[in-house]
Amino acid sequence: MLEPERILRLEDDRVVLLDQRKLPLEESEVECRTAAEVAEAIRAMVVRGAPAIGIAAAYGLALAAARGEDLEAAERVLRSARPTAVNLAWAIEQVRDEPSAERARAIHRAEVARCRAMAAHAARLLAPGTRALTHCNAGGLATGGYGSAVGALLAAWERGVLAHVWVDETRPLLQGARLTAWELEAAGIPYSVIADAAAASLMAAGEVDAVLVGADRIAANGDAANKIGTYALAVLARYHGVPVYVVAPSSSVDHATPTGAAIPIEHRDPAEITDRFAALNPAFDVTPAELIAAVVTEHGVHRPPYEASLASAVVAT
Amino acid sequence: MLEPERILRLEDDRVVLLDQRKLPLEESEVECRTAAEVAEAIRAMVVRGAPAIGIAAAYGLALAAARGEDLEAAERVLRSARPTAVNLAWAIEQVRDEPSAERARAIHRAEVARCRAMAAHAARLLAPGTRALTHCNAGGLATGGYGSAVGALLAAWERGVLAHVWVDETRPLLQGARLTAWELEAAGIPYSVIADAAAASLMAAGEVDAVLVGADRIAANGDAANKIGTYALAVLARYHGVPVYVVAPSSSVDHATPTGAAIPIEHRDPAEITDRFAALNPAFDVTPAELIAAVVTEHGVHRPPYEASLASAVVAT
Repeated sequence: MLEPERILRLEDDRVVLLDQRKLPLEESEVECRTAAEVAEAIRAMVVRGAPAIGIAAAYGLALAAARGEDLEAAERVLRSARPTAVNLAWAIEQVRDEPSAERARAIHRAEVARCRAMAAHAARLLAPGTRALTHCNAGGLATGGYGSAVGALLAAWERGVLAHVWVDETRPLLQGARLTAWELEAAGIPYSVIADAAAASLMAAGEVDAVLVGADRIAANGDAANKIGTYALAVLARYHGVPVYVVAPSSSVDHATPTGAAIPIEHRDPAEITDRFAALNPAFDVTPAELIAAVVTEHGVHRPPYEASLASAVVAT
Repeated sequence: MLEPERILRLEDDRVVLLDQRKLPLEESEVECRTAAEVAEAIRAMVVRGAPAIGIAAAYGLALAAARGEDLEAAERVLRSARPTAVNLAWAIEQVRDEPSAERARAIHRAEVARCRAMAAHAARLLAPGTRALTHCNAGGLATGGYGSAVGALLAAWERGVLAHVWVDETRPLLQGARLTAWELEAAGIPYSVIADAAAASLMAAGEVDAVLVGADRIAANGDAANKIGTYALAVLARYHGVPVYVVAPSSSVDHATPTGAAIPIEHRDPAEITDRFAALNPAFDVTPAELIAAVVTEHGVHRPPYEASLASAVVAT
């Protein structure tokens, strides 16, 4: 597993981020010396993935406190870096009363521990010989270590129940082809990158036993916002009788948001798709709870009805 | 409309192809001086699209005849250039008894005329204000002029019933973002390129009224092979109550193939997806007839049951 400190860390006078935009071709770091620089790195997706940007924001606020920055301004700029993941606001809430390095690092450690717990829960949902399909990157890079959906694949591999992983390349930014493939390669897990549009015919051919994805925000009713394309996978999986498991920490569950309709969907620069032509670039979509077989958090497997089963998905403090 | 001769043409001693791999950044031509060079250009997708590669093969065989090449060998190399589209074999059948320039050019003209006829039929299926979604490029570039599904969009635009076109970028080779966008831009039709994975959430938002795609081969029962991702769109469209129209000439209907299961699916070089990691790269998928609202050929609109309605979809000679 990728060392959590290698993904992101707080040093005395800076937050250091592995530059996920450049992986896997280049392993370089970006150093942020102010909260605004951390916010800009989150916005530019130097660091991405809901839990990881939460941790980065906690580090950013701790850095701002150490530097004597205006904490309200620092909080504001960090909160507004990206709109969809609830972890950003959640992590800031955790450290705002005591924005110390120690507290921010504790959040990082706790997120990784949650990943290990939820991965064990999710791995038990998979039958021997499972060929799993995943979208985007819900790996250690996205969570600050180990991973949510990819963590579940690591745990399933250790248990000997995982046969193969189909990795959606995940346009436009190719987090699957670049990041998930890199993590699976390092773990020695057999996988194939596929064009996002190829998932359906693999399902039709009976080559997909389960879909495992992460989430940027899960509403109280179980609707889950995640990387654009997750909703398509869920509809396709339903049509083919394949279960969809959302694997995410309780810090991604937003009990204050009743349904997916209230989750803000980020629209990113059309130039990510093409810089020559008219384009539309929604970065997330919402998968209705009725298409989700189970939500797995560090507390265990939550089944429908989610209003009740997700009530226990709160961060242990 | 793009001039048919600009897309591909036969000259005295060569077949000249607009290099579709380089569009839209560069408009350059590839000159093929033997049938084997034409076959290689088809394989490399200098020219692509089922009707267009059929025309190219007819030109290739006429070129071979003019040069005094071994015609059986020329036919063999052209037939085997790509496996999925039936038009390749069909066009060769049309010219093999008389592989003259005149006959090959007549096939080209007839394919463009078929496009105009089917486009008119298909445009009448669309209600005023239609927001259509299309995948890959079923435009003039794919048919030697005017286009099948994109031809239908041109006809709908002329009739004033088309409001907007959603263009799947179509990974891995981006025929939608590169070619369809280029054709729509030239025609002045409003469009947005989207990541393939974004189509589902547009449907969920009620932003898609119809899906129009081409076909590389239509089996006798109506199952249609087309660019990978078409099947996913068809399942998603069914789930959202959006009709799927396959617009293709009768030269793409393979009456000898009973169902989609018998259509060979080309697997292309995984390097088209990534040259660093394991990848799987099926280039086509098969959409079951039950997900297709209508097949539109130059003969008109064919509705289920297709075994009966497609019986009339034969090339007028």
